[in-house]
Amino acid sequence: MSDARPAAPASPLLDPASLTAMLRPRSVAIVGASNDPTRIGGRPLRYYRENGFPGAVYPINPNRDEIQGLKAYPDIASLPEAPDLVLVAIPAAAVVATAEQAAAKGARAMVIFSSGFAEMEDGDGPAMQRRLGEIARESGMRIAGPNCLGVFNAAIGHYCTFTASFDLGGFPQEGGIAIVSQSGAYGSHMATLAREKGLGTTYWMTTGNECDVQVADCIAFLADQPDVDVIGCYIEGVLDAGRLTAALDYAHARRKPVVVMKVGRSDVGAAAAQSHTASLAGADRVYDSVFRRYGALRVETTEEMLDVAYACTRRTFPTGRKLGIVTISGGGGVVLADAATAAGLEVPAMPADAQRRLKEILPFAAVRNPVDITAQAFNDMSLVTKNVEMMLAEGGYDLIVNFFTSVPRSKVINARLRPAMQEAARKFPGRLQVMCMISTPEMTKEYEADGYLVFEDPHRAVKALAALCSFGEAFARPPRAAPPDLPAGALPAPAGVVDEREAKRILGAAGIPVVEDRLARTAAEAAAAARAFGGPVVLKISSPDILHKTEVGGVAVGLADPDAAAAAFAAMTARVAAARPAAHIDGALVSPMIADGVECIMGVSVDPAFGPVVLFGLGGIFVEVLKDVTLRVAPFSPAEAAEMIREVKGFPLLDGARGKPKADVAALAEALSRLSVFAAANSDRIDSIDVNPILVRPAGQGVVAVDALFVPRQS
Amino acid sequence: MSDARPAAPASPLLDPASLTAMLRPRSVAIVGASNDPTRIGGRPLRYYRENGFPGAVYPINPNRDEIQGLKAYPDIASLPEAPDLVLVAIPAAAVVATAEQAAAKGARAMVIFSSGFAEMEDGDGPAMQRRLGEIARESGMRIAGPNCLGVFNAAIGHYCTFTASFDLGGFPQEGGIAIVSQSGAYGSHMATLAREKGLGTTYWMTTGNECDVQVADCIAFLADQPDVDVIGCYIEGVLDAGRLTAALDYAHARRKPVVVMKVGRSDVGAAAAQSHTASLAGADRVYDSVFRRYGALRVETTEEMLDVAYACTRRTFPTGRKLGIVTISGGGGVVLADAATAAGLEVPAMPADAQRRLKEILPFAAVRNPVDITAQAFNDMSLVTKNVEMMLAEGGYDLIVNFFTSVPRSKVINARLRPAMQEAARKFPGRLQVMCMISTPEMTKEYEADGYLVFEDPHRAVKALAALCSFGEAFARPPRAAPPDLPAGALPAPAGVVDEREAKRILGAAGIPVVEDRLARTAAEAAAAARAFGGPVVLKISSPDILHKTEVGGVAVGLADPDAAAAAFAAMTARVAAARPAAHIDGALVSPMIADGVECIMGVSVDPAFGPVVLFGLGGIFVEVLKDVTLRVAPFSPAEAAEMIREVKGFPLLDGARGKPKADVAALAEALSRLSVFAAANSDRIDSIDVNPILVRPAGQGVVAVDALFVPRQS
Repeated sequence: MSDARPAAPASPLLDPASLTAMLRPRSVAIVGASNDPTRIGGRPLRYYRENGFPGAVYPINPNRDEIQGLKAYPDIASLPEAPDLVLVAIPAAAVVATAEQAAAKGARAMVIFSSGFAEMEDGDGPAMQRRLGEIARESGMRIAGPNCLGVFNAAIGHYCTFTASFDLGGFPQEGGIAIVSQSGAYGSHMATLAREKGLGTTYWMTTGNECDVQVADCIAFLADQPDVDVIGCYIEGVLDAGRLTAALDYAHARRKPVVVMKVGRSDVGAAAAQSHTASLAGADRVYDSVFRRYGALRVETTEEMLDVAYACTRRTFPTGRKLGIVTISGGGGVVLADAATAAGLEVPAMPADAQRRLKEILPFAAVRNPVDITAQAFNDMSLVTKNVEMMLAEGGYDLIVNFFTSVPRSKVINARLRPAMQEAARKFPGRLQVMCMISTPEMTKEYEADGYLVFEDPHRAVKALAALCSFGEAFARPPRAAPPDLPAGALPAPAGVVDEREAKRILGAAGIPVVEDRLARTAAEAAAAARAFGGPVVLKISSPDILHKTEVGGVAVGLADPDAAAAAFAAMTARVAAARPAAHIDGALVSPMIADGVECIMGVSVDPAFGPVVLFGLGGIFVEVLKDVTLRVAPFSPAEAAEMIREVKGFPLLDGARGKPKADVAALAEALSRLSVFAAANSDRIDSIDVNPILVRPAGQGVVAVDALFVPRQS
Repeated sequence: MSDARPAAPASPLLDPASLTAMLRPRSVAIVGASNDPTRIGGRPLRYYRENGFPGAVYPINPNRDEIQGLKAYPDIASLPEAPDLVLVAIPAAAVVATAEQAAAKGARAMVIFSSGFAEMEDGDGPAMQRRLGEIARESGMRIAGPNCLGVFNAAIGHYCTFTASFDLGGFPQEGGIAIVSQSGAYGSHMATLAREKGLGTTYWMTTGNECDVQVADCIAFLADQPDVDVIGCYIEGVLDAGRLTAALDYAHARRKPVVVMKVGRSDVGAAAAQSHTASLAGADRVYDSVFRRYGALRVETTEEMLDVAYACTRRTFPTGRKLGIVTISGGGGVVLADAATAAGLEVPAMPADAQRRLKEILPFAAVRNPVDITAQAFNDMSLVTKNVEMMLAEGGYDLIVNFFTSVPRSKVINARLRPAMQEAARKFPGRLQVMCMISTPEMTKEYEADGYLVFEDPHRAVKALAALCSFGEAFARPPRAAPPDLPAGALPAPAGVVDEREAKRILGAAGIPVVEDRLARTAAEAAAAARAFGGPVVLKISSPDILHKTEVGGVAVGLADPDAAAAAFAAMTARVAAARPAAHIDGALVSPMIADGVECIMGVSVDPAFGPVVLFGLGGIFVEVLKDVTLRVAPFSPAEAAEMIREVKGFPLLDGARGKPKADVAALAEALSRLSVFAAANSDRIDSIDVNPILVRPAGQGVVAVDALFVPRQS
């Protein structure tokens, strides 16, 4: 894990290679093996036999000598060797003992189909599952499940699963799309869809209740496999956020794209996810920021997941987003240009000179980009070659989409079109090209063999291309800078309620600039303080019993001189005493009035999965009405804070909108980063922190936190 | 057209039945008929013969006696009867004469394939196209094209098109999805996709350059056809916005859903659309508001177009959005709940009592909603029946999605599942139910025969369902109220530049409350005015030479008393005179200061296609930084203005956010409506109007326009 998390519990990434025994076992024992090939304990055995799994398979069943033609053993202890993998398909009550026996025998991995563990709220289930986790940690034997649908490795016929989906359409094809799913049924759904679409999925892993093996472990294992192009994950919630981020980081460092369908975004969905698994679901928006941080792509639909995964199998991840469009339908060109722009691609024009020469070749064509060669170009295919060549050579395009509607389905046309396209593409190997057309499975295979991605729908094509670009950009990004250290002399977060003054002292010690203040106990002291500051001042009531000062008339701003400060002191203390007769009033804090700052808000909350999370937004309506906020898991560097600041819609207000000077975004980023470091270091002591407002002054003049509120952890 | 547009040119909807001769002709003459069945003039003839078109077909070709086995005629004049429809496939130069002959013979419709008209910038093309339009208007013979791909009516084998797409996959199926497209190639693409997906498209119309028949005419014609379930349109831009809105209104009144793919949303796309057709493209956002107003649904992708169109073929348009989810995969339930929420559906829980009884039937199930019956339920299908019945009877759901992944593909399971589902559904005819599963074409047909919609992808399923709901809501909406009349004594928009005072006088006469003011020519007059108003005032420089007063220091606010007003007057006139020595200064306007208003902006601009458009937004950062604005084509009623106001993201600021009183939204809506009526009445005189700000005071206290700027039409 590359980013330091000073105070959070360490979450080391377990040895990814430890899952090798689960996915490439030399021997498999099946506890609960059945002679009935349609039963849970019978299916895997049948699948192994039908697919010629090369390893040893040991059915275990005390009641039979032979199962599906193989010699059966009464128990694990009597096996002739320690099996690499033990598959468990027996009632829950017997599973813990089986796991203990397997570990004692020296098994290296276990997959547990059995249900009746943490997904049951009552009974022994949760305790038994905890015990399984302990066995895994004590023995080093990795355990998938319980309550999972198993794993497979199609390259070696290793079908350690009882899914019935193979009955309906056959076994999966080999290929570089790896699938990891917390849900067995949905994982099976994804694999079935992939097979239907002709996509190869060599590796497939379901994790169920995750007593030991989590989605994170699967990601890390798959990131190390040379025959994996992309890792597609279905996640409902994570048990160990640190392990997930470590795994995402591990995959990122290996340039292995991770596509995530994280469900539970809606309230109903989140509630259903919680009733469906035993996962601790962190706030959905936090996941967004985590995936973005580690370069993983979050998708919303299974179609998008498979589209992106398919596109990743070219292993080409452009760092530019310039798209060239070749079309035989003007309308299609418009559709593609719209779709590409919406997907975040650029559609720049061909250079003027190239346009002129293209027009000479293709007088009827639109030559700007989209380049509409019209169906007429198919009369002389050398024109198609020349056109595509010129776009590849001179357009500066990172990507090309050829949109040919259904015309290439004409065998007569395609017999000439394909060689013409091949000729143009040959000179530009590695350039990403898409054929967008209403295709047949055979034609798709042909163009794929030529190096093309083939899509039917233009919107889906450009969305998948944009995903490749986002991976390209993430892979090209320099390593994240480490967050700064806590400054020397930093104070701990308070254990109880503290007043504004103390809150600001703690923030200041954490490296965040805070406004100066003086406590005035009398009107005369207020006037003296105003005189000392030498400009307009602000007065705020100081009382340990009053958290929300404005509600009781406890704030006065723009007091121009000492007399005004004194008058305001008198009026305020009277007002507050009337509103809150029981409150102890220390006096009022006098601070210089900062008139040239943009009001912003920083805050910290503690996510159940990811720990302290820092929130940022502009003040006032931006946070309260528009909910225009962004967040990051703590801690992070000023560079990452600067990205964060640019994510809010109101950012132009910090960037010189409406004729104002640009604000000191660098100082603001520094303050956010400092707050994140403080939050991470105090994650066990805080419930939330509000710095509201922090004023961002013009560039070079820094920021000033004006008020702060700590809420300590209750437990 | 139900809404009055006082000053805009009238755009009557042409008689929709006049297209009957084009889509259901009893006789067709083919000018340029070819004996070669692969050529443009040969294909339609071949298609008629292959499909047994029942009407008379007259090839016209002066060089042959017989074409493709039919007697040929030398010209239109020599035909034995006036043909219903004349198809034209000859070079552009001869087309106008042909149209004149056809009109003279008494033909009622014409379809022109020939290109070389308005899509060519130079030469005779544009003039010839204008002449074709005149011929149509003079004779009443409706003309589609030129430069179009034709029309078809699959119910009678009427394939008046030269598309080659039938060669590759056969002719379309009959069915209730009608397709209208400005682009021939993209229209063909949509029809091909529909056929591939097994969707029936009886009617298909392409309009090309639209010399006469526009997309609007096709919509109106199709809205009258009983065998049309839904009208899917591809639009790049419209020539006659009034006719489009009239047609949308006509379809809406007939409860015929219209789905629109309006392209050119991106700048590149819009540029490509303009180079591709000769359409005048209005601003893209104006189209959004127009489609919404008339209950048409704008979609972004062809897939969505076909998904929604398919869903419309059930002809069930719910007015509620409550979705019940039945699933055998907990994960699938989460996915669906998320997707449904994102699509704007509701996923309410089953009633508590029903949950309890469901739990008795299905102890393993999650019974809240999503209802996860688990694959276990398939062991006893009567449980499935009971579950679905209970959801239909007691859940109060408008829609049900059954998400069964790929399991029903098992013939064994489906042989029991389908009757179980049928039994439950039989008691609730007309309730919209979806089977969401990885299906086969045969299984899809079976479930469709049972009344289900069948979708593979859950996201696409719920998106299509949400579209049905939006149609249901639009069809159920009461007729729009007419906009108010211009008040008696309304003034015309000014022909030249006018100052703020005159601008406010014109606004006031149009029925929009404006702030009182007095022109002060001296500091003493400023003080007198302030005294007369009796509270704090605002001073603004009054000069016909200064449009932007703040830029020259020409605005002073919060002047508490007459002395302050006098002082401000002296300082302001000196400041402005220094900044703009050449400006003639009349003095300064004194107005009461309104402190309790929320600052908003109203404006008018003139869209090239749709005419005057009214814009609304909150003031300041909302418009300038967040671009948080909404718009409507003028004129409209206060009720529609009220909808508009609720569309901006900042609406909570008018609705009592942050502890403020609710603002007078009714008065604001009235003012917006009044502005729209004024704009419509003056559409030929104005270029733009800015009312900035208009202050919205607390409920019951009205609005006050504080400043206004008219920019007269230049031409």
